[in-house]
Amino acid sequence: MGSKYPRSMRGRLPLWTLMLEVALILIFFFFTNYDSTSKDHKTDVANYQLGQDVTVMAALGLGFLTSSLWRYSWSSVAFNFCMLALGVQWAVLVDGFLDQLSLEKVVITLSSIQRATVSAMSVLISAGAVLGKANLVQLLVMVLIEVTVFSATRTLDKEVLHSNDHLRLMHIHVFAAYFGLTVAWCLSRPLPKGVEEKDQRAVSPSLFAMLGTLCLWMFWPSFNSILLTQDERKNAILNTYYALAASTVSAISMSALAHPRGKINMTHIHNAVLAGGVAMSIPGHQILEPWIAMVLGLTAGLISIGGAKYLPVCFDHLLGIHDTCGVHYTFGLPGLLGGITYIILMMRKASRVGSLISSFHQVLISSGTLGLYVATGLASGLLTGLLLNIRIWRAPHVAKYFDDQAFWEFPHLAVGF
Amino acid sequence: MGSKYPRSMRGRLPLWTLMLEVALILIFFFFTNYDSTSKDHKTDVANYQLGQDVTVMAALGLGFLTSSLWRYSWSSVAFNFCMLALGVQWAVLVDGFLDQLSLEKVVITLSSIQRATVSAMSVLISAGAVLGKANLVQLLVMVLIEVTVFSATRTLDKEVLHSNDHLRLMHIHVFAAYFGLTVAWCLSRPLPKGVEEKDQRAVSPSLFAMLGTLCLWMFWPSFNSILLTQDERKNAILNTYYALAASTVSAISMSALAHPRGKINMTHIHNAVLAGGVAMSIPGHQILEPWIAMVLGLTAGLISIGGAKYLPVCFDHLLGIHDTCGVHYTFGLPGLLGGITYIILMMRKASRVGSLISSFHQVLISSGTLGLYVATGLASGLLTGLLLNIRIWRAPHVAKYFDDQAFWEFPHLAVGF
Amino acid sequence: MGSKYPRSMRGRLPLWTLMLEVALILIFFFFTNYDSTSKDHKTDVANYQLGQDVTVMAALGLGFLTSSLWRYSWSSVAFNFCMLALGVQWAVLVDGFLDQLSLEKVVITLSSIQRATVSAMSVLISAGAVLGKANLVQLLVMVLIEVTVFSATRTLDKEVLHSNDHLRLMHIHVFAAYFGLTVAWCLSRPLPKGVEEKDQRAVSPSLFAMLGTLCLWMFWPSFNSILLTQDERKNAILNTYYALAASTVSAISMSALAHPRGKINMTHIHNAVLAGGVAMSIPGHQILEPWIAMVLGLTAGLISIGGAKYLPVCFDHLLGIHDTCGVHYTFGLPGLLGGITYIILMMRKASRVGSLISSFHQVLISSGTLGLYVATGLASGLLTGLLLNIRIWRAPHVAKYFDDQAFWEFPHLAVGF
Repeated sequence: MGSKYPRSMRGRLPLWTLMLEVALILIFFFFTNYDSTSKDHKTDVANYQLGQDVTVMAALGLGFLTSSLWRYSWSSVAFNFCMLALGVQWAVLVDGFLDQLSLEKVVITLSSIQRATVSAMSVLISAGAVLGKANLVQLLVMVLIEVTVFSATRTLDKEVLHSNDHLRLMHIHVFAAYFGLTVAWCLSRPLPKGVEEKDQRAVSPSLFAMLGTLCLWMFWPSFNSILLTQDERKNAILNTYYALAASTVSAISMSALAHPRGKINMTHIHNAVLAGGVAMSIPGHQILEPWIAMVLGLTAGLISIGGAKYLPVCFDHLLGIHDTCGVHYTFGLPGLLGGITYIILMMRKASRVGSLISSFHQVLISSGTLGLYVATGLASGLLTGLLLNIRIWRAPHVAKYFDDQAFWEFPHLAVGF
Repeated sequence: MGSKYPRSMRGRLPLWTLMLEVALILIFFFFTNYDSTSKDHKTDVANYQLGQDVTVMAALGLGFLTSSLWRYSWSSVAFNFCMLALGVQWAVLVDGFLDQLSLEKVVITLSSIQRATVSAMSVLISAGAVLGKANLVQLLVMVLIEVTVFSATRTLDKEVLHSNDHLRLMHIHVFAAYFGLTVAWCLSRPLPKGVEEKDQRAVSPSLFAMLGTLCLWMFWPSFNSILLTQDERKNAILNTYYALAASTVSAISMSALAHPRGKINMTHIHNAVLAGGVAMSIPGHQILEPWIAMVLGLTAGLISIGGAKYLPVCFDHLLGIHDTCGVHYTFGLPGLLGGITYIILMMRKASRVGSLISSFHQVLISSGTLGLYVATGLASGLLTGLLLNIRIWRAPHVAKYFDDQAFWEFPHLAVGF
Repeated sequence: MGSKYPRSMRGRLPLWTLMLEVALILIFFFFTNYDSTSKDHKTDVANYQLGQDVTVMAALGLGFLTSSLWRYSWSSVAFNFCMLALGVQWAVLVDGFLDQLSLEKVVITLSSIQRATVSAMSVLISAGAVLGKANLVQLLVMVLIEVTVFSATRTLDKEVLHSNDHLRLMHIHVFAAYFGLTVAWCLSRPLPKGVEEKDQRAVSPSLFAMLGTLCLWMFWPSFNSILLTQDERKNAILNTYYALAASTVSAISMSALAHPRGKINMTHIHNAVLAGGVAMSIPGHQILEPWIAMVLGLTAGLISIGGAKYLPVCFDHLLGIHDTCGVHYTFGLPGLLGGITYIILMMRKASRVGSLISSFHQVLISSGTLGLYVATGLASGLLTGLLLNIRIWRAPHVAKYFDDQAFWEFPHLAVGF
């Protein structure tokens, strides 16, 4: 157990993943077929481009966003990529079955793949919290569980609270953040001295992380509008632009304010500039004036930097949750801000047209939806964390946390970076 | 004043930028609203994709283009990003007010954001000339001034010379280049020995710069056609493709010719391959045969490499203008080439259909337009430069030029790059 | 000949390329004009976006894919870029002339540039095999020959075997791989001790290569569907998604299985995850069920990793072919798999509707097509390789293989990377 060498993954990784892939192929063989009816092709092609934007966010954006760890950049990018490839296949199946609530053949369309990509992004977000502390087998187990639970939660939401499709998917950030945090809580161990130093950022990997951030930032308007109709889309796009612009400015200034000599922290920037986009996910299409989006973006940036500065002290030392890439303040807190804004907007809308009772009813439903995703995120995250602690996964030893060398074949001359 | 430590930005940056952001939100609150009339949604979505291409150029392209400085790559990318976020918000307002020439409510549409992104790119281009010699507060002041002046110049052009919308925006390169050069002239100081060494390029940052160059190169056809109608768009796209291809080939061969042992200079390549796209911005939609675009691309590449080789000697030593990223020969000279080509094309067109007088009139108008942008660029750049020399901005000391450490919190182990 | 210094390119590169560019402009002057007839603009713009995806694959994807060599990353990216710029110009001409089989004026449209970009990608693929062993002049000669031969082969295919446009272009992978391999065979020399060490991968360049891989991975569905009609496009896109996802999972697990301690090889990942997309190029639009695409993707991943593990032993030591970037197992073998799948699919289809004879006839035609591209690839590659061995090109000395310093002007302080 205390061996200096990292545990070999050869007995686990190839066997499990190949078996999984074969199982997936068998399920696809028996239970799916393509949509052969002819439809409106023009819309298809326009949607294909929006879907590509989301794929860029998942593969490049979330992949490189977490690549700034000094000695863990290869794993960050490649594990993210592998989780995405598996997650998309699994999500198409789970979403298909749970959408029709039967075992009939699932019909696969272009839009079901795009929806699956968004579903799979939930795991990529959560993985940021456990990065460097889990091996690829554990991460792939997490993919299977999280995608299933997220899809089940959305089905529950649809059946009980009757939210629409867009709204259900946009609760991804709060769900994924709290799922990731509880998994990280289960996997967190006190770090030995030498390991803490590996949890550092270096110059060139930080530029790669900036590349990831920019890819997410640029295409976030597409993400927030992918399931909307043409009419609602415009507002969601415009509001996301404004919120992102405001959160960028506020994040950079707050980061300088938080440092005694006014220096900016690059890791803050990577995460906090995105807070505006996260905050717009749920309420974006309902906001009718740009200044509201800007106020929310500004607030999201403040919350995110505040969280990055003060939460680690509380979470790390008191609760023992080591949140490697700051998932809580990048996705969790701004997501909550967005959810609460949506509740207020719905309340105002209901009170304007109807009675006090309908307004109260609306608040109850909106808060119920937000609470549902947070609660299932926390609960399923806890179960997943406990499951991942079982020995059969050969989790990396704590001395090998944040270390690419445990997983990757390096050239014999250990060339720097 | 001669302190070894860089001046703290804490008293300036957060205060100023947050106040600015709050002021922006107030202006948006009182003076803007969204366009609520329903329009042709199909065109909107197609234009959204073209607009995304331009956002990629602004955030990734211009951000990473200047990231090749050895110890200044973080600031290059992140300051560019912050200027873009602020610039887009400001440009929407200024463009809106100056377009209607009244203080009525500005109606915000998707296309007004795209236009604002292009306007904001003027500052990103100019910033290349002063990179490493100004702090973020100075750069943000520059954003406010340059976007306002560029918008005012375009309004003047519209009212007096009646140019169309596309043509006005495409004079951005000459305007921005000469604005940047005069600001750089005001900020230039003789560099101490150690600082000159920081003005070097390293291998990995150069690859990031190559990434920026390629992002600009690939999406330049979208930039040159974003404001055109469907009919004119095709020619602008095709001509930009050809000019870029020709300038790439000529830039690489000229760079090898300029070196005594035939070696290619990476910094030349980053900039000069784009010369063809810059040269196509103004006349692109009026060129009806591919060979003309190719000749212009070839010439633009030659001029750009020639400028990179011989201009620094003249500008740096005689005039004392230190143009960090070669804005003059990347955007200035090829932009002038494009402007002059447009004058010739207009003259030929007028002389073919009309009398000598109408031909002469056309030349006068086209040259007037080009001259207007160069002149306002030079004049407003000079005023901005003088303004930025005031002490209140806490400009970085000359010993801290080109140094990320003045602005960024670095990890305690100064990991390489 | 045995000089320590790399041979100067000054006498060759600028002269040849400028002359070439001028010759191209002259040909464009006499033999081309733009399409001035008005057409369906909506389709044009939708296709423009698909074409942009392919440009991203060619410039960013194939450029950075090969950038992981320790001391050759600048040349990988920049030479790829230069070859693309020249290749597109040349391919438009050659394709135009061979398409109409006369010397009439070639009409240039947006789609002819996109087709030319795909044609030019054949050289970018082949260049991976000779990377680090040829100078830019040799590579540009290769561009001229390979684009011409590829276009001629497609014309032969069209005239004799009557394949459609899409199918002809999708044989690019097998053609380019075998072309590249035979050129590499001619240029391969036993490497001295010090040079072998340069054939290593480092951390940061490997992340750039990952960026290239991801760009190719994300946009491969656009590549496989660019020449299809709206109806066929959907299946090709969906199948490519599934094949890529399956090959990613199988490549990562096989790479771990192939290492005694279960470690993953980054170079394998860069190449093998793309095998699914390559395998889908030829048969993609004819596959009607997702599980077939997934089985093919899985198999392609296995073949690719198997090839990466065992082929170098055989090829390198027995045949003396040094395939720098593993073109054979990235593009060659998966391409053959796709070709054979297409033959089987066509046979099944023919046997279902028609007689045994028509089925046999179909097999003959499909195999003939595949064989044609492999054969012309091998033959023309051999001739090109022999031509490139002539002394006039000043090929780099074997001691300067894989070395950026032979071609690039470096800053005086040799900053690491």
